[in-house]
Amino acid sequence: MNEEKNIVVIGGDARYIELIRQLQRLKNVNISLVGFDQLEQSFTSLKQIDLEDVDQKNVDIIILPITGINEEGKVEVVFSDANIILQPSWFEELKTETKVFTGITNSYLTKIAKDAQVNLIPLLNRDDIAILNSIPTAEGTLMMAMEYTDYTIHSSEVVVVGFGRVGHTVARTFSALGAKVSVGARSKKDLARIKEMGLHPIPLEKLSANVNTCDILINTIPALVITKEEIKQLPSHSLIIDLASTPGGTDFDYANKRGIQAILSKSLPGIVAPKTAGKILADVIVQMI
Amino acid sequence: MNEEKNIVVIGGDARYIELIRQLQRLKNVNISLVGFDQLEQSFTSLKQIDLEDVDQKNVDIIILPITGINEEGKVEVVFSDANIILQPSWFEELKTETKVFTGITNSYLTKIAKDAQVNLIPLLNRDDIAILNSIPTAEGTLMMAMEYTDYTIHSSEVVVVGFGRVGHTVARTFSALGAKVSVGARSKKDLARIKEMGLHPIPLEKLSANVNTCDILINTIPALVITKEEIKQLPSHSLIIDLASTPGGTDFDYANKRGIQAILSKSLPGIVAPKTAGKILADVIVQMI
Repeated sequence: MNEEKNIVVIGGDARYIELIRQLQRLKNVNISLVGFDQLEQSFTSLKQIDLEDVDQKNVDIIILPITGINEEGKVEVVFSDANIILQPSWFEELKTETKVFTGITNSYLTKIAKDAQVNLIPLLNRDDIAILNSIPTAEGTLMMAMEYTDYTIHSSEVVVVGFGRVGHTVARTFSALGAKVSVGARSKKDLARIKEMGLHPIPLEKLSANVNTCDILINTIPALVITKEEIKQLPSHSLIIDLASTPGGTDFDYANKRGIQAILSKSLPGIVAPKTAGKILADVIVQMI
Repeated sequence: MNEEKNIVVIGGDARYIELIRQLQRLKNVNISLVGFDQLEQSFTSLKQIDLEDVDQKNVDIIILPITGINEEGKVEVVFSDANIILQPSWFEELKTETKVFTGITNSYLTKIAKDAQVNLIPLLNRDDIAILNSIPTAEGTLMMAMEYTDYTIHSSEVVVVGFGRVGHTVARTFSALGAKVSVGARSKKDLARIKEMGLHPIPLEKLSANVNTCDILINTIPALVITKEEIKQLPSHSLIIDLASTPGGTDFDYANKRGIQAILSKSLPGIVAPKTAGKILADVIVQMI
């Protein structure tokens, strides 16, 4: 691997500062940044360019934001006012060997990548990244819970809905602080693991019957699971934190009607621990380059 | 105990709203509030009065703020613009059986209480209250640590200085979240307990030799223990959180000179979990009335 690799980072949030810092340590890479023109700290030796100035034929690696791009091709940029849209025609110009990293993908991005025959790598689909990334997510959830309540996490009743990579970490984290944690899950295997961890297992179909003393309800399932039926049973002082990707899994209108605080959180790792979150991504990307 | 008790609450922060709520549940009490005139939620059936309107001869119980009063007798009020000063002459008018609750005391308050022969009860001197109160303190410390760093608590190196009622809880809390925790203590007994907890014990006199990879340094000792010698050894990205009562135990000027963030925190329980903190106080006060 002695040939020089051309890397273009297009958009991204505070996590990407650490990511770019780690990429700079590599030998034989040539890094260009699109959508970082308002970044306060400047990266010496890096090129800040516009999307039009990218020479697609010479790009080996593209890094898109963790949040990916939207269904119109718009790239989320935090450090620029530029309106960056990735068109199918722009993608078509890429070499077929090009690796395109993103956090998550959607039908638009999947299609244009497939049509352009490039190698799309949605990082959060990887278990290792998703599990490590769940650590700052859980800490961010803790921080939100502390901000939005006037009681301690210790001794509070917490119900975590879902026992995937995020739900597992969130349940363990709140339990470690002394909360009484129940976890709603579907599979017998997950319910057994929840019991083994000393937590209270709730079969998902019985969720509504198990939330009437819940102080903090945390959803991690990206489907409508916190419905009217569950919200009706919640005490009025309770707090709902929804960690599932937009639009979340909560009937927010109904929660609002009942006067129950419900928050759809997003990109907690980028807010609470951008450095750690950036390093998690960098470690895997560097390994794959 | 069927006689009616007259309780006067003078000053206090958000914790006192819960405290007052709990006191209201008692039978045969008559509660007056001084320094709560700007409180948004009104307590029906309670009298809002001025200090001059208190009839000292008929007061059975006085509740002062957790922070006590300062050396000029000034009472800290959060919910009022009134300037409330407790003079020795005002105290002299109290009945000798009067119970005066405060969080902490100082030489001024101790003296005027002694001269007036009233029964002064500094609540935070009690082990039970101090230990329960250390829970919201530890959670507040966690929240500050998350706000002021760009990395996760998980895997970070934390040094807690002091293993009293607060230090013990703080060390356990950070360790529970996956931080690598060392604790500085003086006694052989404490150092043994720290080791038993799976944490790294540091004899206090060797503190400076053990902080050169520290990410977060948390002091709980109310004496100058974080001196130039320790601060010199800290990495430049590190964060000092000082939980000791004002003026703390850190050489803040020197930390500032070295560009190391150092924060003197105060009244974390009242900020992060006023309801829980108020209930902790109420439970003990109610028991003692």
